[in-house]
Amino acid sequence: MGEFDLIRRYFQRPAAAGVDVGVGDDCAVLVPTPGARWLVSSDMLVEGRHFLSTVDPARLGHKALAVNLSDLAACGATPRGFTLALALPRVDEDWLAAFARGLWALADASGCPLIGGDTTQGPLNICITVFGEAPAGQALLRSGARVGDEIWVSGRLGDARLALEVFRGTTALSGDGFETVRTAMECPTPRLALGQALRGIATSAIDVSDGLLGDLGHILAASNMGARLDIDALPRSAVLAAQPVALQHECLLAGGDDYELVFTAPAGARLPDVGVALTRIGVIEAEPGLRVVDAQGATVAHGLRSFDHFSA
Amino acid sequence: MGEFDLIRRYFQRPAAAGVDVGVGDDCAVLVPTPGARWLVSSDMLVEGRHFLSTVDPARLGHKALAVNLSDLAACGATPRGFTLALALPRVDEDWLAAFARGLWALADASGCPLIGGDTTQGPLNICITVFGEAPAGQALLRSGARVGDEIWVSGRLGDARLALEVFRGTTALSGDGFETVRTAMECPTPRLALGQALRGIATSAIDVSDGLLGDLGHILAASNMGARLDIDALPRSAVLAAQPVALQHECLLAGGDDYELVFTAPAGARLPDVGVALTRIGVIEAEPGLRVVDAQGATVAHGLRSFDHFSA
Repeated sequence: MGEFDLIRRYFQRPAAAGVDVGVGDDCAVLVPTPGARWLVSSDMLVEGRHFLSTVDPARLGHKALAVNLSDLAACGATPRGFTLALALPRVDEDWLAAFARGLWALADASGCPLIGGDTTQGPLNICITVFGEAPAGQALLRSGARVGDEIWVSGRLGDARLALEVFRGTTALSGDGFETVRTAMECPTPRLALGQALRGIATSAIDVSDGLLGDLGHILAASNMGARLDIDALPRSAVLAAQPVALQHECLLAGGDDYELVFTAPAGARLPDVGVALTRIGVIEAEPGLRVVDAQGATVAHGLRSFDHFSA
Repeated sequence: MGEFDLIRRYFQRPAAAGVDVGVGDDCAVLVPTPGARWLVSSDMLVEGRHFLSTVDPARLGHKALAVNLSDLAACGATPRGFTLALALPRVDEDWLAAFARGLWALADASGCPLIGGDTTQGPLNICITVFGEAPAGQALLRSGARVGDEIWVSGRLGDARLALEVFRGTTALSGDGFETVRTAMECPTPRLALGQALRGIATSAIDVSDGLLGDLGHILAASNMGARLDIDALPRSAVLAAQPVALQHECLLAGGDDYELVFTAPAGARLPDVGVALTRIGVIEAEPGLRVVDAQGATVAHGLRSFDHFSA
């Protein structure tokens, strides 16, 4: 199967609403909503670095788009479309069919059509760029946190990292427990509805991709603020809560791959209910730095840092 | 050097005009021009497939952006920005500094700022996604060619392929001749001004990336037309013109990597002068298929086809 047959078979559909031209010309042509800002994010996934070679390709298709949609969610954007650039060592039709199925399922569920891209031969590499919209001045940024703002997180943290530790062989879990955390790692849910509902409410937001410490650290740096973080308040699954405390802390603080939203909001703000649990985990302070404390307010030493692709 | 230092040192600058938020948040935020359509294209470059490991990294930075801008040019779009996703085997600061220099030079010359992206460790892979604008209904597409339209091409064809043949060792050139064709291969010029000037004039357009036969074939397929192509009219450098005829034909018809624009326009249309040579190379016909003829109108057998990443 040649390059163009491959695109036609797996990645081409009639252009969606708001798309003048989709896959199959030199560029896709989109119709912007009058008055909206245009938001763009791009993530590259490399085999062995972002996913295991043994992963179910349908889950990989889901995750490749999910991590990008998560960036739109963190900015409060409404998805409009995405491009897919894909390097494949060879054409494996079973793999492609499953990958495309996982990708399209999330694309359809998110109202985010595939509008273009590229395919080539090479070491497996998936690069997705997503486009979304938000009303002018309403995109959620990292820079708006203010003293006294409460820090919130959606869903649960740490399960993806716990699954990775099982794959690495540093810990073991029962079958059910393993499936729970493996699903968290392989099928993250981008918090699009939450992000959009937080427009005009959250003062800053980010998604947890590299680990809570580092990602919250980006908010603090961009906002010129410090924070106190209650480690006992961090929401975790029963599976993670059953692990040794040191491992829990590592997964919660430095795990990454969670794709939950961390955001700040003024104390007492009315937060939206979009069916996702929200947990208050700390407070923004004027003193620079991130102070991790327990439920009694005592400092917790951790020595952890976030994931860095060139230092890890 | 960590991931974020790398981004700050080589790929971060203050946000450009029309960019509310550039590199450094979850998304970049752009301000669309009221009434314009939004055009998007994405290309992935893989070492050993799209470039040689020995290429000057400054030229690689130029070319990675140039091949993407060429897609905007083919649609008549005005560039607005691009994202860069980069997988690197290791952090090599000399390489990165040169790559970034070549990239920024073309970005600045094209008014197309880097607005975001991703860096990770992995086999060298460069994925750029470009964004541009065109007035509603004025983007140049592949689908508008009509019977009697003339077929035109900008610049010269075939030099990039001739350079590749020298690298492959199938032919040899003198130093000056080699530098000419090597520069064509490594430093293509995206025809942005020409593409924009062809809005409202050209009935269809495409850039020559995979080879003239295949790329013109895309126009014919999208337009439901056929064509007659005069092989003797194809513009070529003196270096290429000095090669055996069979090699000339291969480079001209099936070479690819030219990044010139092929477009159709009604006979007698007044074509823009933007300082780029334009050559009439054929005519659109109702009969399906692409007929290659010489200056006397005799059919030329060639047996060539365009580059395909999974068949070549």
